[in-house]
Amino acid sequence: MMAIPLAPHPDRALPADPGTRSVARRIYERTRALPLVCMHGHVEAQVLADDAPFPDPARLLVVPDHYVTRMLMSQGVPLEELGVPRRDGRPSETDPRRIWRRFCEHWHLFRGTPSRYWLEHELAEVFGITVQPGPETADLIYDELMAALAAPEFRPRALLDRFGIELISTTDSATSDLAHHARLREDGLGDRVIPTFRPDSVVHIGHDGWRKQVEELAALTDVDTSTYDGFLAALRRRRAAFAEAGALATDHGHLGTDTTPLDDSAAAAIYARARDGDATADDAAAFAGHMLFVMAGMSCDDGLVMQLHPGVLRDHHEPTHEAFGSDRGLDIPVGTEFTRGLRPLLREYGHHPNFRLVLYTTDETTYSRELAPLAGGYPSVLLGAPWWFLDSPDGMRRFRELATETAGFYNTSGFVDDTRAFPSIPARHDLARRIDAGYLARLVTEHRLGEDEAIETACDLAYRLPRAAFQRRDAVTACR
Amino acid sequence: MMAIPLAPHPDRALPADPGTRSVARRIYERTRALPLVCMHGHVEAQVLADDAPFPDPARLLVVPDHYVTRMLMSQGVPLEELGVPRRDGRPSETDPRRIWRRFCEHWHLFRGTPSRYWLEHELAEVFGITVQPGPETADLIYDELMAALAAPEFRPRALLDRFGIELISTTDSATSDLAHHARLREDGLGDRVIPTFRPDSVVHIGHDGWRKQVEELAALTDVDTSTYDGFLAALRRRRAAFAEAGALATDHGHLGTDTTPLDDSAAAAIYARARDGDATADDAAAFAGHMLFVMAGMSCDDGLVMQLHPGVLRDHHEPTHEAFGSDRGLDIPVGTEFTRGLRPLLREYGHHPNFRLVLYTTDETTYSRELAPLAGGYPSVLLGAPWWFLDSPDGMRRFRELATETAGFYNTSGFVDDTRAFPSIPARHDLARRIDAGYLARLVTEHRLGEDEAIETACDLAYRLPRAAFQRRDAVTACR
Amino acid sequence: MMAIPLAPHPDRALPADPGTRSVARRIYERTRALPLVCMHGHVEAQVLADDAPFPDPARLLVVPDHYVTRMLMSQGVPLEELGVPRRDGRPSETDPRRIWRRFCEHWHLFRGTPSRYWLEHELAEVFGITVQPGPETADLIYDELMAALAAPEFRPRALLDRFGIELISTTDSATSDLAHHARLREDGLGDRVIPTFRPDSVVHIGHDGWRKQVEELAALTDVDTSTYDGFLAALRRRRAAFAEAGALATDHGHLGTDTTPLDDSAAAAIYARARDGDATADDAAAFAGHMLFVMAGMSCDDGLVMQLHPGVLRDHHEPTHEAFGSDRGLDIPVGTEFTRGLRPLLREYGHHPNFRLVLYTTDETTYSRELAPLAGGYPSVLLGAPWWFLDSPDGMRRFRELATETAGFYNTSGFVDDTRAFPSIPARHDLARRIDAGYLARLVTEHRLGEDEAIETACDLAYRLPRAAFQRRDAVTACR
Repeated sequence: MMAIPLAPHPDRALPADPGTRSVARRIYERTRALPLVCMHGHVEAQVLADDAPFPDPARLLVVPDHYVTRMLMSQGVPLEELGVPRRDGRPSETDPRRIWRRFCEHWHLFRGTPSRYWLEHELAEVFGITVQPGPETADLIYDELMAALAAPEFRPRALLDRFGIELISTTDSATSDLAHHARLREDGLGDRVIPTFRPDSVVHIGHDGWRKQVEELAALTDVDTSTYDGFLAALRRRRAAFAEAGALATDHGHLGTDTTPLDDSAAAAIYARARDGDATADDAAAFAGHMLFVMAGMSCDDGLVMQLHPGVLRDHHEPTHEAFGSDRGLDIPVGTEFTRGLRPLLREYGHHPNFRLVLYTTDETTYSRELAPLAGGYPSVLLGAPWWFLDSPDGMRRFRELATETAGFYNTSGFVDDTRAFPSIPARHDLARRIDAGYLARLVTEHRLGEDEAIETACDLAYRLPRAAFQRRDAVTACR
Repeated sequence: MMAIPLAPHPDRALPADPGTRSVARRIYERTRALPLVCMHGHVEAQVLADDAPFPDPARLLVVPDHYVTRMLMSQGVPLEELGVPRRDGRPSETDPRRIWRRFCEHWHLFRGTPSRYWLEHELAEVFGITVQPGPETADLIYDELMAALAAPEFRPRALLDRFGIELISTTDSATSDLAHHARLREDGLGDRVIPTFRPDSVVHIGHDGWRKQVEELAALTDVDTSTYDGFLAALRRRRAAFAEAGALATDHGHLGTDTTPLDDSAAAAIYARARDGDATADDAAAFAGHMLFVMAGMSCDDGLVMQLHPGVLRDHHEPTHEAFGSDRGLDIPVGTEFTRGLRPLLREYGHHPNFRLVLYTTDETTYSRELAPLAGGYPSVLLGAPWWFLDSPDGMRRFRELATETAGFYNTSGFVDDTRAFPSIPARHDLARRIDAGYLARLVTEHRLGEDEAIETACDLAYRLPRAAFQRRDAVTACR
Repeated sequence: MMAIPLAPHPDRALPADPGTRSVARRIYERTRALPLVCMHGHVEAQVLADDAPFPDPARLLVVPDHYVTRMLMSQGVPLEELGVPRRDGRPSETDPRRIWRRFCEHWHLFRGTPSRYWLEHELAEVFGITVQPGPETADLIYDELMAALAAPEFRPRALLDRFGIELISTTDSATSDLAHHARLREDGLGDRVIPTFRPDSVVHIGHDGWRKQVEELAALTDVDTSTYDGFLAALRRRRAAFAEAGALATDHGHLGTDTTPLDDSAAAAIYARARDGDATADDAAAFAGHMLFVMAGMSCDDGLVMQLHPGVLRDHHEPTHEAFGSDRGLDIPVGTEFTRGLRPLLREYGHHPNFRLVLYTTDETTYSRELAPLAGGYPSVLLGAPWWFLDSPDGMRRFRELATETAGFYNTSGFVDDTRAFPSIPARHDLARRIDAGYLARLVTEHRLGEDEAIETACDLAYRLPRAAFQRRDAVTACR
């Protein structure tokens, strides 16, 4: 088999209809080079703080990308053979070239997936690769990537500039000491790489290691977390430390959306049971819902934008999770309900001038039924960008089709990526801009919107809205 | 900024693909001028009975339209500033020009929404406005609208003729005295403007003011409603009065779809508890489901077509509801289940020759999963048009795509609008005709339907099916 | 009215956009003539074993096709008038020409449905009919079909060859004696017409006649099924007999997806209660879930591929079911949940090398939310083709759009039909190939996939994947 050229087409992911495509091309042209604002990602702060060269193609593009390892696993390639380390110390592939070859041999599995789009974009536009991955080209590509990674212009901070990233936030546990962010600040990158406060590990009392986490919280804050009141005080202190370090937002992963507040004594009693290891599953669910309510109140006080992405059952295959750890045990979405779940929180804070809630989902049925009506009514609610499995060409198109007619464009957050794969960031933003250009172009071609308005809207979605959505609520000015 | 021309394109909302568009244009041309049948609207009978001039642009197009006020509220414009009256007597904007300016300043929020389409159509085609709303054009448009509204040809009855409305039904509480309809009948409009019987306020025993409502029912019917039997007798009498006044249908808003009948003594016991103020939430839910079953039986007797639109949680934000009243407190859809809920009712009446049930939903997931299979099987069931948030260009397109393959076209009711904004009626029907033309044109272009058949079907959807769907069931003839 | 020509267009069901259509045409051309693999159908083995002529057009195309009789019933044509026999012996139409006329008079009801597409294809391409059905053409078509059916080339086995069916599986109760398959084997068709093991009637302990079924199981296997252990042993023996007769798969219809295992004593206790007629509804649900888990274990042992299609409430209208029997009482889908339901089964067997689970649904909301993430992760899970109501042009298109981005193509089973109408088989496969060609063509036109890759993928979906999916798991080789 001959090598197939890798040459991402300038019109890729634009609509098929030629008339719509030419409008889309004009719209896309106006957003293509706008700066990137990356407010919901999972890049490790350490990568940018250390600014060390990426080690090899496997550990850059395969091992850490659970979209990729998951697809390979689904066709029978064990995670060990992809170099994912086992937690029990049993062996796992260590030769990056062999991992890379396995990936290239299975390139056809990615047909029709966003991973294919992102990887093509990265390989071609970031690294200058000119042939498609495949069994015959694996070594060639590997060698070219290795050569590139050795060069200074492929270090993380150089890529930060090259990618045009104006602002990127990492996602950090409430118990992170933010040391990497401190180093970034010393290096003058403090306003460009900021943390996001993620308290999941301290609010989900049923999780393994919860008690250890709240003790770390105590150690970091010098507040005794043995009581519920102390726990809240410590959280407030951590939030202040994050805000001090530049954070603009919090991020909350919950299985459900319940936000029913408990009265103080009930919350304190559950907390006490959790400390004693006696909390029930019902306790855990009630406490998690209560803490969303409490955190919304804290957001009104400190202005941090609240992000919620519920509805994913983590570690569906427990044996794989036990062997390989988080994000490897197959996280699978479940049906999600927002209308009833968020009602207590929105009753209290939905009209609060300092409050902003950005909602994400992996359940598309909620776009037109619940999320667009909520975002199209409550001043505090924005719809986040299509999340995770839905951050894909057709997924993003459906999002606009299902949400816009009720929520409009201006109750959405604009595009935020959700990647832990740093070099995929430009590919993801580029794809979003193309899909939005295509959707807007259809509105223009169907005479539902003027082209000037469409261009202005596209720029808002790509740049102005994400900036405005994640401004601190105590310093908000309107987007236009 | 210069004023942007407002000139709705003749091809608006037709498909982008040129080949499909020319077929769609030919189909649309055949339905464009068909009379309007408006069987599910919320125009006040008084508007047509009084035939008074509309007061001003704000009170015509902004204040009463909760699609519009909701979107403005979602971006931080308080309802008070939009002139929505408060129930507690606290002040609310009274200057219509200032309200109109606020609306025009936020025109960009409506990009991509059906409100934008409807408003453009109304402004241009009903009122001859030639510039887009915006901060600079607000006063100009206001003055032109004021001038138009003073002219006799913009009075409600003149518009009724100009719009080509053959039949319009209002929605009226079971306790309405139908006095406006009596006046309309005296003026020779009794066969053209008819009431619809909506018993929600008397069957939902948990609602505020229920007891007062059933006492009004007693007063209107001269039947003692202190007992369950009396209540049923009074309902039958009111239904007869509505039928006498020309009503063809009933309309039922429920949170769920349960239709489980209670035995008489259980129903009577709940009714007695409700009279005493002792009914529980479970009582209320059981009674509501039971009454749907009972009302279906009454429909078999008196031939009134039954309409059901379940699945919306009313007044999601209670403080806003308390301040501004119904339809202002953010009604938000919830997931809805039809298969199990309707089973008791359909077991009993689903094949009854006198029974017709028209189903609406705001939960699109039920189109292909439940509603199309039910409508494509039961002789009594029709799918209503896409309702509320889904009465939109892409929403209507999805409805056809999701429902037609199982239900066909002839198990749908054809288009019914759901508006309380009288001058938006032609815009809404026009949009539906364009979307149906586009869907049918795709079937033609994909060689799944002949163009002659498509034209016939389009005319059926626009006119013949809504007429047939809402014929009295005791006087039915087939649509074709 | 003149007769309208019946001439299925060569480009039918290909995308409307001309550029996309020409790519689709090239892709379709490469799959058009591939052999048919029919692994999930409901053709009766007896039809092929007897090889008798089909009796008449009504009993070939109308009476047995519940898609057709259901649509006619929905518009008020009683099943009796369509010749569906009543179980109580009351009369039902017996004149096939009158049944055929009734069908032709209602031809317009099928506009926009897949039945229309299939019937046009069958009438034109299988039987050479050249006019559309209608009141005026009913007799003409009837006579032409009668003449064709008398000819030897329209016998079932001749059609098997003409249709290019390489492999067809029937669906057979666990208590089938497989006598028809034995005859087929004697006639040299044993490798081409194979059974599928469907144990629903023996695992659903709440169904009428369950006890009789397990007694038949005992009689067929010579194993005493009065105990739970005996029941399991008898099931194993039947599975072996099916495998012996060529079966590659089992097929399971359940209302829910629960797969929670019971411990042996609990299962045995429920079984004993069921034998005594004392089992509760909860018992039945728990036992059904448990048996899915047990059957998955048996699949690991004997290599039969497990198919599951949950989520349909059978016999929604009980009076119709009582009068006319199975498949006539309106089976209506309900919302379905896979993530939690399948977790116990997948925890145990999801990574087992001998296990394969093919999942079908009538709830489209699960495609992107649950099924694609499961199939895109677990090595054992494949997504089956769009099933039943969703086996339609737009339904299949939506399936690809909703599932591919997360599951890819290679975690799907490729096309399987689900028909009991033998002569509709080519039409169904043809339609699937056209829709897949259209979807792939869009990816090509949008520069998301190369045309060579698209062609290879199309061939995989049409032929190689269904062959690979239903290989015995103990004899699996990779698809490519």
